[in-house]
Amino acid sequence: MESAIDTHLKCPRTLSRRVPDDYQPPFPMWVGRADTSLQQVVMAYLGVQYADEAKRPDALAALRHIVATFEGADGPEHHDLTHHVDNQDHHNLMVVGYWADPAAYCRWLRSDRVKGWWDSDDRLNEGLGYFREVVAPRVDQFETLYAFQEELPGVGAVMGKISGDVNEHGYWGSMRERIPLSQTDWMKPGGELIVVTGDPKAGGRVVVRGHDNIALIRSGQDWIEAGDDERSLYLDEILPTLEAGMDFLRDNGEDVGCYSNRFVRSIDLDGNELDESYNIGHWRSLDRLERWAESHPTHLRIFTTFFRVAEGLEKLRLYHEVSVSDGKDQTFEYINCHPRTGMLRDARMPSSV
Amino acid sequence: MESAIDTHLKCPRTLSRRVPDDYQPPFPMWVGRADTSLQQVVMAYLGVQYADEAKRPDALAALRHIVATFEGADGPEHHDLTHHVDNQDHHNLMVVGYWADPAAYCRWLRSDRVKGWWDSDDRLNEGLGYFREVVAPRVDQFETLYAFQEELPGVGAVMGKISGDVNEHGYWGSMRERIPLSQTDWMKPGGELIVVTGDPKAGGRVVVRGHDNIALIRSGQDWIEAGDDERSLYLDEILPTLEAGMDFLRDNGEDVGCYSNRFVRSIDLDGNELDESYNIGHWRSLDRLERWAESHPTHLRIFTTFFRVAEGLEKLRLYHEVSVSDGKDQTFEYINCHPRTGMLRDARMPSSV
Repeated sequence: MESAIDTHLKCPRTLSRRVPDDYQPPFPMWVGRADTSLQQVVMAYLGVQYADEAKRPDALAALRHIVATFEGADGPEHHDLTHHVDNQDHHNLMVVGYWADPAAYCRWLRSDRVKGWWDSDDRLNEGLGYFREVVAPRVDQFETLYAFQEELPGVGAVMGKISGDVNEHGYWGSMRERIPLSQTDWMKPGGELIVVTGDPKAGGRVVVRGHDNIALIRSGQDWIEAGDDERSLYLDEILPTLEAGMDFLRDNGEDVGCYSNRFVRSIDLDGNELDESYNIGHWRSLDRLERWAESHPTHLRIFTTFFRVAEGLEKLRLYHEVSVSDGKDQTFEYINCHPRTGMLRDARMPSSV
Repeated sequence: MESAIDTHLKCPRTLSRRVPDDYQPPFPMWVGRADTSLQQVVMAYLGVQYADEAKRPDALAALRHIVATFEGADGPEHHDLTHHVDNQDHHNLMVVGYWADPAAYCRWLRSDRVKGWWDSDDRLNEGLGYFREVVAPRVDQFETLYAFQEELPGVGAVMGKISGDVNEHGYWGSMRERIPLSQTDWMKPGGELIVVTGDPKAGGRVVVRGHDNIALIRSGQDWIEAGDDERSLYLDEILPTLEAGMDFLRDNGEDVGCYSNRFVRSIDLDGNELDESYNIGHWRSLDRLERWAESHPTHLRIFTTFFRVAEGLEKLRLYHEVSVSDGKDQTFEYINCHPRTGMLRDARMPSSV
């Protein structure tokens, strides 16, 4: 049994754990491990939004264009593609890119094919929306948790290695305790979302400023290789409750501290659905995410189902990754997106601050 | 908003809370407050057991005898009566007495009418079982939580006063954080249950030695004054799940660290049922109780129901009290009880230690 916090990220605690030293988790789980040289990762969610089915080919072409910019030395180590329909009946295609080197991300971002394309006035007149939601957590600011040990998705693909059984899981508070920074820091939210450029209601270009310790959770399901029993477990038993919980957060997030919640389906470059999905949620703070997760009936039902089946899972892959980040390491930019997209819904105009 | 830990019990922390300073509970709850002179309480569960309905009058007479010993200066400040049928189909009558002064309890215990009666060989030949399960937590070793503010049951009746809204509730870990000792102590279990006199299988007199930090929870429901809606909320919605959870602990407690679990119905001196009940559970440790409470489907369902209705409760009274105690402040004594009674089930014979 090892700690979820890697050896080189351990430090003298000023904040104690919730459980005693001799805590024993009820079943095994694993976390991603990275080389000690990894300092900070970039998680860039790059979106294309369209209201009308007829725009799908254009939107897919735009998505493919973004993915094409990943080629070359400064592209991300890993990426994947998704589609979802939001509660304004808009379609959204996203590619998330994971960089192990923030400097490479910056070079990519500033390259002509990226900067020139994003800044071009053409983006304002294509009948498509675009967004970039990017956070760059340091290695002491994120955690992962996998119910499997191979071919890690998401940030695990950048980390590259898997731990042995870890101690910090199976109790409320373990997510926080897997984040190395929790040893010494409450990770409290540092401000409010503020619109710093444009006006969400007017469309066009809008930039939102984030704040310290926005929490980002990616929580995923992969039933590609699952047999009949595990497909049924996921599709018939877990999924309906999961959808209810994720719809609740999408539609009522403002009340519970969830800025944005998207339950997305993985796709290929042609837009065909794959048997993978994940939820991507932005929260005002880790403690708001904790309070919801540990008290909402839908999440508790998912949690107890997972507890029941975790040890017997064979091909159904369940995992999550959670990060906090500094406000200065966040980017939230939108072009012609509807005003409830991403951070736009909860961001305040400067005049109202 | 005030802390559940009373001012005179605050001390510099060596263990941190789970939630940040600015945590706001989702609805109001209250705790008992005692005069600063209160140092330690005694909670004495005194039982009469019988297998056969025909023994009911004798058992009730024995219960009344015990209650009669409470009269006079050294009796408990407060007591109440219950009945339950255990999973060996035995009936159990219990009176729990609460003393605010351990010295008075000792005098009561050593008085002829108590000691003489308990020690008499007559107790061995009446076709009844008897037990005494007594713990004496110091004031830094217990906590209370009430969804109401008047006529406190259980240890609250001895404390005598109620707090204002307290901060430490509504999240997993708050029970522990309401116990003053949690500021500096993990309250880890200090040993095993050991049979020190007799043999549970043989009947007769058996004494079990406890160990540091056995946790005792009393969790109660009172629908005496409830109107139709709240009676239905309790009887139709909460009770079935509560019974399922409490039956689970009664029958499977050994696997999860629950030494004994009794879901009991309040009665009057004639054995008539009242519209009050509570569960009384003895646990190997506070953290085993926490793990079960925060992960078992039945308890999570009760918890989410309570979250939903807590703010609107009018006459349905829900509460709990939780203590840990030092091994030296525990007594577990049995006369002719079946071998799955109370601590007997999990206590090990010295030869097997």
